[in-house]
Amino acid sequence: MSNFGFQHLRLVTPWEPSYLGARSAVGASQVLLNAEVFGSVAEAVADCSLVVGTSAVGERELHHSLHGLEQGAELIRRGLAEAPVALLFGSEKFGLSNEDLSHCHWLMRVPTRDEHISMNLGQAVAVCLYELGRGDANDLPAGTNLPASALEVERITEVLFDALCTSGYVQAPGEAAAREKVRRLLLRLKLEKNDAEVWLGMMRQILWKTKHPGNEKD
Amino acid sequence: MSNFGFQHLRLVTPWEPSYLGARSAVGASQVLLNAEVFGSVAEAVADCSLVVGTSAVGERELHHSLHGLEQGAELIRRGLAEAPVALLFGSEKFGLSNEDLSHCHWLMRVPTRDEHISMNLGQAVAVCLYELGRGDANDLPAGTNLPASALEVERITEVLFDALCTSGYVQAPGEAAAREKVRRLLLRLKLEKNDAEVWLGMMRQILWKTKHPGNEKD
Repeated sequence: MSNFGFQHLRLVTPWEPSYLGARSAVGASQVLLNAEVFGSVAEAVADCSLVVGTSAVGERELHHSLHGLEQGAELIRRGLAEAPVALLFGSEKFGLSNEDLSHCHWLMRVPTRDEHISMNLGQAVAVCLYELGRGDANDLPAGTNLPASALEVERITEVLFDALCTSGYVQAPGEAAAREKVRRLLLRLKLEKNDAEVWLGMMRQILWKTKHPGNEKD
Repeated sequence: MSNFGFQHLRLVTPWEPSYLGARSAVGASQVLLNAEVFGSVAEAVADCSLVVGTSAVGERELHHSLHGLEQGAELIRRGLAEAPVALLFGSEKFGLSNEDLSHCHWLMRVPTRDEHISMNLGQAVAVCLYELGRGDANDLPAGTNLPASALEVERITEVLFDALCTSGYVQAPGEAAAREKVRRLLLRLKLEKNDAEVWLGMMRQILWKTKHPGNEKD
């Protein structure tokens, strides 16, 4: 909840040892410290104009309309523009009872595969809130990495080609085809500008070594 | 993983008591029973052409490009059309190390709010796999150029690193940071599979020359 910016946790008759233990733990999140406890679902959702139940699909859900998470989240965002909305989760062990479900306007399910529809509670909450929070914040600015210029790539091509000739990899240095092949190889790398300088430095040093065997460079 | 239909769990040096306990528990999921254990990240991702790290944003990530989950998932679906993709998660306690990150092509983050960016591991996995499962991967056109696998890139990394040490470019060969820097440089090139073999051959020949000055290779 805290990760995705949801602040209002409401608990219905939580099991006291777990609840109090979690609240008093070092580093307990603000969401938990601010949680409100209610004696019934009815009281917990009293001020909400829309109550959405979350559930793996089963026969009992035939009483309700069912929306997939993506569509459901869109409906919830619309509802939130007008009034508080409750997203109701059942316990890890038993899920939502029929009584709980009777408070819901409709149900929403995370699109899991048919062979394994039941989710861990914490994971189901995280996935639902992630989808609810989807929007502008999701798109981080594009990387600022500029591509290397043709000149920068060509300088590396020259040094690499020289090293390939010196080492004997290129057998016929005079043929244009060999040089072109090396250039195409380098262009396919789509080098970034920042990296191009590093590559040129590395290649120059290696080239130097192929020509000055046994020496240590100053 | 099982909820969203992901079958291939790979673990790198898992803590034995937890791992064996979970595997032997009643009702252990098929994903866990089929999990593979590796001694290093390099071995675990060897057959993958794209390795994506997941991380809360910090200063160290400046070495990598960073994508939001929505955009990153789209890129991963495209990569999956061609070859296996690894999604790398760190431990609950420590996250991914710099050495782990050096195996990643880029990083992806779940769009959490700035005040609380660090997520529970299981929840982060669930949210990422939910987003990955969104949409229809079949719509994506298959590229004709396959990307190089992590193993192919790692082989080139080793030869280039050796040449850089021999030539004196790398002054402290024992430091992990130098090797990690070379690995990141190579991963940013997004090498194609066909080219990877050519690069390995070129680098091997140049390396040989730096070590055998004055000789002509047979």
